[in-house]
Amino acid sequence: MEQPTREPSPTVGELGETAVLARILPRLEPGEAALLGAGDDAAVVAAHDGRFVVTTDLMVHGPDFRLAWSRPHDLGWKAAATNLTDVAAMGARPTALVVSIAAPPTTPVSLLEGIADGLRDALDALAPGAGVVGGDLSASSVLTIAVTAFGDLDGRRPVLRSGARPGDVLAHAGARGDAARGLKVLFAEARDADGEPDADLADAARTRHPLLVGAQLAPSPPVSAGVVAATSGATAMLDVSDGLARDARRLAEASAVGLDFHAGALGPDPLTAMAGAEDHGLLATFPAGTTPPEPFEVVGVVNGDAGRLTLDGEPVDTSGWDPYSGWDGGTG
Amino acid sequence: MEQPTREPSPTVGELGETAVLARILPRLEPGEAALLGAGDDAAVVAAHDGRFVVTTDLMVHGPDFRLAWSRPHDLGWKAAATNLTDVAAMGARPTALVVSIAAPPTTPVSLLEGIADGLRDALDALAPGAGVVGGDLSASSVLTIAVTAFGDLDGRRPVLRSGARPGDVLAHAGARGDAARGLKVLFAEARDADGEPDADLADAARTRHPLLVGAQLAPSPPVSAGVVAATSGATAMLDVSDGLARDARRLAEASAVGLDFHAGALGPDPLTAMAGAEDHGLLATFPAGTTPPEPFEVVGVVNGDAGRLTLDGEPVDTSGWDPYSGWDGGTG
Repeated sequence: MEQPTREPSPTVGELGETAVLARILPRLEPGEAALLGAGDDAAVVAAHDGRFVVTTDLMVHGPDFRLAWSRPHDLGWKAAATNLTDVAAMGARPTALVVSIAAPPTTPVSLLEGIADGLRDALDALAPGAGVVGGDLSASSVLTIAVTAFGDLDGRRPVLRSGARPGDVLAHAGARGDAARGLKVLFAEARDADGEPDADLADAARTRHPLLVGAQLAPSPPVSAGVVAATSGATAMLDVSDGLARDARRLAEASAVGLDFHAGALGPDPLTAMAGAEDHGLLATFPAGTTPPEPFEVVGVVNGDAGRLTLDGEPVDTSGWDPYSGWDGGTG
Repeated sequence: MEQPTREPSPTVGELGETAVLARILPRLEPGEAALLGAGDDAAVVAAHDGRFVVTTDLMVHGPDFRLAWSRPHDLGWKAAATNLTDVAAMGARPTALVVSIAAPPTTPVSLLEGIADGLRDALDALAPGAGVVGGDLSASSVLTIAVTAFGDLDGRRPVLRSGARPGDVLAHAGARGDAARGLKVLFAEARDADGEPDADLADAARTRHPLLVGAQLAPSPPVSAGVVAATSGATAMLDVSDGLARDARRLAEASAVGLDFHAGALGPDPLTAMAGAEDHGLLATFPAGTTPPEPFEVVGVVNGDAGRLTLDGEPVDTSGWDPYSGWDGGTG
């Protein structure tokens, strides 16, 4: 199949670190919390609360994305979105990111520019006011994106996984299974005759299934719902990145409670909703008798069966994604 | 050549993410600033100052280290040490790290345990009280270590690169060229007949040249000197990671001053002292007429020739390490 036409771009090896950074940094905003942005040995970020929330995550070409399927903008968007959701899951307001990229010398600079644009656009859409305060550019044979994200609790207690109590309302915000459905679409419709990921077929699949493929490649998690949950008295919360069942079990174990999901609340395909990874929704518990704030929806109830997960009272399989057993070794 | 005997260790692919983390996390201390350590969606770190300093850096197998030369403990040590020095170069006190590691599924768990031990020991030695508050473990075909380090300014202004003034004293703390000399030793004495890095030969070279090889593989930068410089009125400071000449030019350009080094202060081989990368010393300027505090040593003077770098008045070549042109593509 013919390769998609791309604008000619020098490679990062041709330009060198300094010139590449000069093309990337102007695409990023340091954000409102940046007291000193990129350019010195380190950045300085405001933490009015006297504490800061921090989370970090790596995205690696192969196990975490295929370059034939993900556009550069998608990579930056997803790298920001997933880390922002971890900040949100503490009940914190995201303030800033630092981003390190390791790229092969043959990487077109336009690819890094696309990643930068995706980072900026995700920040603008999901965490207005937050920005990129620093980073690092390295060489590697494998494209790798490392994001560390920061948040401010604005004087509140962090919302931990361990605070759920029997009787609490179990609620969820965000997609339930769409990212896994999108991945299934890509495997079914965006591989060539040899089974290799193909960019043109991915574009066509995305046109046919924009919501599902978009949920996989450039998710829009409910980042602002994290603070909403915290100010509404959420007793526990976590980011659902490895599938609702697997992450719900983490909350159940940390809180020493049982969680019973209502199948009727999970849509027409509750099993995919429970098993599908990478949705980056927020699972939270709220005190008994309260109505969870929008965009949270009631999906079940907390009970006293410590560590037990059920769907309408029946046990649930909570196996899920593991970065080592889950990667087939392909890159694409 | 016979391979060194190693203890049998399961691989990270055999154990899976959760079991690997259960073996690594107990080797790390969260440190005094950790209000909430690893285990939830994000950590919470104290920032009494109301601001925090942040820097991030990637170490990649191939361009940044050879597994035949660097022991796992070295990798963790160096990853911590280099990031701590960037925090110190702002005049800040290091408080915490987050660490993400991407490793091939075939990686022995003992290698990650060694990295963790190296991180902890470097923190204990170079920044007592600081710890590891979180991280991430991913799969990749290339071992990659991403560290983000934090520091507290304790109410002081950050020491920027841009504050040097003509007449200031130019001073340096730390090694000058030893890391480059150690790398030269390794290339000369620790490659087998095919030119491939060899672990046994590296051990022998390290025994013969412990200071130089140690400076390359597990440097001990003057981290605590960062706060000392700040409280002694340093007008500018930066971490010397790409060679004294190249980094000095950055300070000269940021401050719009000239820097004249005294060859006599740079030891018997001033050119290696100026060009050698990876020493991670601190270059700082202090007000005219003052005596820089220990461990800083006077190495020159600041003048008004904006952006100009000289050695006893003669122009200096400031080319140096670039991650793209500098990597030969080998891994070892």
